[in-house]
Amino acid sequence: MKITHSSPSQADGPETTDFDVDGLIEPAILDAVAALDGRAPLLSGMVRYHLGYAGRDLRPLDPHAVDHGKRLRPAVALLAAGAAGGDPRVAAPVAAALELLHNFTLIHDDVQDESPVRRHRPTVWSLWGVGQAINAGDALFAASHLPLYQLTSTSVSAELILRLLEAFDRMTIAIVEGQTQDLTFEARPDVTPGEYLEMIAGKTAAIVRFAAWAGALLGGADEATASRWAEFGVSLGLGFQVRDDLLGIWGAQEATGKAPAEDVRRRKQSLPILILRERLNGAERDELRCLFSASNVDSAGVARVLALLEREAVRQAVEAVVAGYHDQAAAALIDATQPGDNPARDRLLALVERLSSRSG
Amino acid sequence: MKITHSSPSQADGPETTDFDVDGLIEPAILDAVAALDGRAPLLSGMVRYHLGYAGRDLRPLDPHAVDHGKRLRPAVALLAAGAAGGDPRVAAPVAAALELLHNFTLIHDDVQDESPVRRHRPTVWSLWGVGQAINAGDALFAASHLPLYQLTSTSVSAELILRLLEAFDRMTIAIVEGQTQDLTFEARPDVTPGEYLEMIAGKTAAIVRFAAWAGALLGGADEATASRWAEFGVSLGLGFQVRDDLLGIWGAQEATGKAPAEDVRRRKQSLPILILRERLNGAERDELRCLFSASNVDSAGVARVLALLEREAVRQAVEAVVAGYHDQAAAALIDATQPGDNPARDRLLALVERLSSRSG
Repeated sequence: MKITHSSPSQADGPETTDFDVDGLIEPAILDAVAALDGRAPLLSGMVRYHLGYAGRDLRPLDPHAVDHGKRLRPAVALLAAGAAGGDPRVAAPVAAALELLHNFTLIHDDVQDESPVRRHRPTVWSLWGVGQAINAGDALFAASHLPLYQLTSTSVSAELILRLLEAFDRMTIAIVEGQTQDLTFEARPDVTPGEYLEMIAGKTAAIVRFAAWAGALLGGADEATASRWAEFGVSLGLGFQVRDDLLGIWGAQEATGKAPAEDVRRRKQSLPILILRERLNGAERDELRCLFSASNVDSAGVARVLALLEREAVRQAVEAVVAGYHDQAAAALIDATQPGDNPARDRLLALVERLSSRSG
Repeated sequence: MKITHSSPSQADGPETTDFDVDGLIEPAILDAVAALDGRAPLLSGMVRYHLGYAGRDLRPLDPHAVDHGKRLRPAVALLAAGAAGGDPRVAAPVAAALELLHNFTLIHDDVQDESPVRRHRPTVWSLWGVGQAINAGDALFAASHLPLYQLTSTSVSAELILRLLEAFDRMTIAIVEGQTQDLTFEARPDVTPGEYLEMIAGKTAAIVRFAAWAGALLGGADEATASRWAEFGVSLGLGFQVRDDLLGIWGAQEATGKAPAEDVRRRKQSLPILILRERLNGAERDELRCLFSASNVDSAGVARVLALLEREAVRQAVEAVVAGYHDQAAAALIDATQPGDNPARDRLLALVERLSSRSG
């Protein structure tokens, strides 16, 4: 992801404040992965494969052919540091740590969801088995801490580094808590939209919250301001996930890489389905439960669910939820930053806009 | 495990220097587990169940009925701090962190090995499924860092805490590396004793190494002395594991809780089998490979393997390996400590003796 530090009206050429997320975090990511090189070449090999640096034969891939994913979390950390008044580079170790942590959760999620494909390639567990995929995730989680220790050779105080590390581990606990809820919800027919939003506050939004909070602190924000940054991160993360839920049902295939209504077919109890269930009467609620109790919903079933979603105006309700988070994120961001020229803040605002209206 | 700080000749009554491992580490362990209490009661519940604080209904167990395991690693950390000249209590946070980390690895190991039973109770995955067991391990790994942050409220410098944290994560990588090798070895018919010892140096000994090294540093050891402590830990850990391999074949059932020759029946490629394979000629090596290619070795097969082990004097060879590590551990310990009265060192020497000749 290329972040241009210029206001939209100056978007003709890159400014001196330009920075490239990949370029800033790549060295720390590669260092951390290299710490996994040892007596078990498969271990670092699986991690490099997952991160897009190696093929399934564990040989290096052409760097230009690599899909690293969106790298949203590191971008938020770097831009928060810049918008809070610091040099974005001061947050590079945190940004790299978050990208590594995020990928650890993806490797384990793919095992838990039995997902065969991630970023258009077979998942780690589907190539090397569940046991080794657990190892790849565990090692990547351990390695995700390593960039933070690099902060000791900067001007950041040891006390602040320790605070960031403890918050990093507590944030991870929140993510795993959300993941635990998510798996529990699969067996429950009565999850409410409120419970679901609580779950994604951990599973998806906790890491964006940390990115914004830690980036701002490293950029020089005081405690109170950093708290506003945390609120910005939560709203951005929640909006991002709910928008994802929306695209899982109504997204265009060419943008999302998923078939239309794929989440319905796969019986995902995402926010639209939970809102729909609340709006149905008893008989139709039973019908929905029945449709979702098959291993896959067939095409007639998908059509029926889409018709119910349309009749109950669920898409509009979900769009209103996204818009609400968007507004909260924008308000927190304005509140957390000084008025006036602030290209990093403007980039974050543009990111909020883009994520809340993105099509893929 | 009760550690009495008195020389053997004074063993009549407890001394004022007595300490109880459980008593010293329990508060930090319970605090770390409480950090998992949140929106997913199952998460902290699974961890409490695994640690022996709760039953499968997630209700608290009678504290006196609890089997916490050997708690060898925390004992080594506490005694190393004492033997290096410090108050053993200074190492309590490290000791608690290691016990939590060890238990995270056990939860994931049980998934990987498909083990149904641990400490006479059903394993976490066998009760709540693979997906939730992965979550329990992930959360426990994150929580294992938390006791180390408690060091910030002691006289230990922030710089030393950061060094311990980084070494803790790198040690975890070594453990996972060993576990990755272990799973890889299962599919290989040509693992050598040397490769096996390298594997357990990571999987089993790295954590004992860290316990001794970190305990000594916190107890006031200088860098060079701490390195000798690390060597002590490696030798103790390796000796412990090889003794375990020995007991898995020749141990008495009442002491180990395993049937005689259980590791042969379960086709475990532990050190005795690898040494045997090296000593056999081609035809008998093929026979052994054939016996170990069934899902379980039948009783005639077990008898045949035991006869080959006897003929090739493998037990004596393995006992010599254990004795070698025992001698290395004792020498490193003597070298790392001052001559003269040192009850913690004497307790560690007694621990070395006990572990190298233990029957269960």
